[in-house]
Amino acid sequence: MSQLKAALNQVRDDRDQHLSEYKELLSIPSVSTLPEHKGDILRCADWLAAQLKQAGMDNVDIKDTGGHPIVYGESLKAGKDKPTVLVYGHYDVQPADPFDEWDSPPFDPTINGDYIIARGASDMKGQIFAQIKAVQALTAHGDFPFNIKYLIEGEEEIGSENLDTFIDNNSDLLQCDVVLNTDACIFDKDQPGITYSLRGLAYFEIEIRTCEKDLHSGRFGGSVRNPIHILSELIAGMHDDQGRVTLPGFYDDVRALPQEERDAIAQLPFTDERWRKMSTSEALYGEDGFTTKERVGVRPALDINGIWGGFTGEGAKTVLPAVATCKLSTRLVAHQDHTNVPAMLRAYLEAHMPDHVQWELRDLSGGPAATMDRHSPWMAAATAALHDTFGKDTLFSPEGGSVPVVGMMQEKLGVDSIMLGFALPDDGIHGPNERQYLPNFYRGIETYIHYMIRLGDITP
Amino acid sequence: MSQLKAALNQVRDDRDQHLSEYKELLSIPSVSTLPEHKGDILRCADWLAAQLKQAGMDNVDIKDTGGHPIVYGESLKAGKDKPTVLVYGHYDVQPADPFDEWDSPPFDPTINGDYIIARGASDMKGQIFAQIKAVQALTAHGDFPFNIKYLIEGEEEIGSENLDTFIDNNSDLLQCDVVLNTDACIFDKDQPGITYSLRGLAYFEIEIRTCEKDLHSGRFGGSVRNPIHILSELIAGMHDDQGRVTLPGFYDDVRALPQEERDAIAQLPFTDERWRKMSTSEALYGEDGFTTKERVGVRPALDINGIWGGFTGEGAKTVLPAVATCKLSTRLVAHQDHTNVPAMLRAYLEAHMPDHVQWELRDLSGGPAATMDRHSPWMAAATAALHDTFGKDTLFSPEGGSVPVVGMMQEKLGVDSIMLGFALPDDGIHGPNERQYLPNFYRGIETYIHYMIRLGDITP
Repeated sequence: MSQLKAALNQVRDDRDQHLSEYKELLSIPSVSTLPEHKGDILRCADWLAAQLKQAGMDNVDIKDTGGHPIVYGESLKAGKDKPTVLVYGHYDVQPADPFDEWDSPPFDPTINGDYIIARGASDMKGQIFAQIKAVQALTAHGDFPFNIKYLIEGEEEIGSENLDTFIDNNSDLLQCDVVLNTDACIFDKDQPGITYSLRGLAYFEIEIRTCEKDLHSGRFGGSVRNPIHILSELIAGMHDDQGRVTLPGFYDDVRALPQEERDAIAQLPFTDERWRKMSTSEALYGEDGFTTKERVGVRPALDINGIWGGFTGEGAKTVLPAVATCKLSTRLVAHQDHTNVPAMLRAYLEAHMPDHVQWELRDLSGGPAATMDRHSPWMAAATAALHDTFGKDTLFSPEGGSVPVVGMMQEKLGVDSIMLGFALPDDGIHGPNERQYLPNFYRGIETYIHYMIRLGDITP
Repeated sequence: MSQLKAALNQVRDDRDQHLSEYKELLSIPSVSTLPEHKGDILRCADWLAAQLKQAGMDNVDIKDTGGHPIVYGESLKAGKDKPTVLVYGHYDVQPADPFDEWDSPPFDPTINGDYIIARGASDMKGQIFAQIKAVQALTAHGDFPFNIKYLIEGEEEIGSENLDTFIDNNSDLLQCDVVLNTDACIFDKDQPGITYSLRGLAYFEIEIRTCEKDLHSGRFGGSVRNPIHILSELIAGMHDDQGRVTLPGFYDDVRALPQEERDAIAQLPFTDERWRKMSTSEALYGEDGFTTKERVGVRPALDINGIWGGFTGEGAKTVLPAVATCKLSTRLVAHQDHTNVPAMLRAYLEAHMPDHVQWELRDLSGGPAATMDRHSPWMAAATAALHDTFGKDTLFSPEGGSVPVVGMMQEKLGVDSIMLGFALPDDGIHGPNERQYLPNFYRGIETYIHYMIRLGDITP
């Protein structure tokens, strides 16, 4: 029996075991942004390191980054005639609040029909875990078909703060021909898809202070500035009537859309009605002159991610607040440079901020947009593997989310990434009741097996 | 020795004891808006009831209102040739958050020079407590000089929700010639003042929902409405370039200012620079065409008291929120009717709310504005008592705060209120480090003694 067939048989036999380990992984609340979960982060890194050892990886190590550590492992026994592939993933997750909107506890994985519900189920513990299970199955039935390295980080949800320095300091260790980035979606339950472009991110916090302490809104109301009013006016001015972002120069570097690309996007089996339902909103809304798929895939956006100020408790407190704060993020497309956005936002704020107000712009995180070559042998192997499992041709789709590491790998290691993962667009990642469609978790393991066998056939 | 002199001597001797009991009262966190303080509210009511008994009051009772109870007590032995005065106060306080902006714990009263620092020190436990101590001193040295009734409520800071029904149901019990409202300020440390007008209040919560659940801001950003953007646009539109409120009809009933009143206001020893310092802001701001004192005293205002939505924790969560909420209050002047404001605000929201958005306007509390007769005998007795203690003539000042009960007493019992209390405008009420100037706490007790002796001389 071939290594392929033996590995496929084994993962079919081991589904219960895989599900049970997957649940174990999901029950670790590895929330990277909250300091109180530092211990869980380390526990999650240890758990994955053990899995890599079980998959036959050498030099498995929890590598310090100054922030949350990176899980590394490698198997270089295939020799230099074979490709070297760097598998990228992250083991950290977004915070789970608002907790009361979850139907089951976010870190107590719950099966509901074909879905498993938990924070991180889809983004992205399910994906990296499926990939490792595929490697374990292959190494159990023969030599591993190429050289593989793992870089699994713990800071993706907080902007991969220490990743660029880590890559700079370990560029020899991480040298590779291509990155297999498992932090990815397919198009639909039974329709394989690969993301060929990703938006960049620039994330900020803006704080406005008008006085030193909260005031009584009766005594002072009408005689001093209210920071919530100022912040609201600034936010209201950040979009024009056409739904365009008004930060000065924001569109200067945005790539013009070739008609052929617009046609290809229009051909995707994407419908506004389905997207609207997925968004759970009553109607869609966005920049004039572009379709919904273009708005999220190839056009930039600006959103306020959170806002707070004054009294937010129950009842009526007659306070005139001293401070108002918001979180703001921009989603960027080629060829916008995320490092230019802070200056644009600062210019906007300087132009519109009233006098006699103290304010601060904090740059929280950012990452470049990325566009991938759809015609490389790595991509051809991926679409073939997807066809092996799903029996269908792959659709190429531009996606709205940001995977800054893709741009980083292009910049620092000079390699493209193949986005191959089995999340679905309606998994509700970052929100309550995040879920993973289990049939595709199992098909994902099999697809990775097919893909890795095919990667072994490529001459680097 | 006269009753006056004996009472004055006694309160001078008892200052340490008064301070110690005052601290006891301040240490009860009687926060009316927070359900978890229900027990403290009841404890505070009991504490005051015991004080009233000690002051020789009859029929002392903790009266149920459906919400937080009212402390009642009376002494009607003076007979019908003497006036009947209803003393009003409240024993509830505002929440103390943000706790980290307090230099000492808000419910652990702390002396700092001439000040005592605690939530409720100025608003208004210090005032009602001083008045009761004055009554105790008088009853210890003779018959009480007039008929007195107490109504001390526990819901002033949440809009006196049950007070109007209580007054309706107890109009005989509460019958009186005048109200002595102790929830009041004087003008300056050594300058007595009496408030002759108060602003009304209408307080709301607005909630905007654009989808059922929070979304991923990368995946969906640019394709759906963001409720924080909508709320910001609505807030930004609530004032025009002249700092005027844009709610339809908002100024229709606002009393035109007679030139003589503007002249009198201009004569008050009020300076913008002092007000600005008191506000701890770098500059003042408000409606064009009016002075600062007019803006807070005799012109209406609208303020957002709080706002929240999306991710408000540490770090960068890339969420596109489903809901945004704010608290909004208007401060009203004669002859604006606070019951008209909900319809104005609703009309504004209906006119400016985008389609396909779910929203709710919640009416939280409200109360009428009030203007008092400056030439009544009750007022003359108050200014004379202030002269007895401070040696100065009283200034009459319009104030920005709301004491809805003043309007309610006019409407329901047909009586004016005399606003006589010893708080200072810079006590920082409702904010962190609320304080009471102790020399005026003691002068307050003495002024109340003088005032009550003088009230006994008035023929009702």
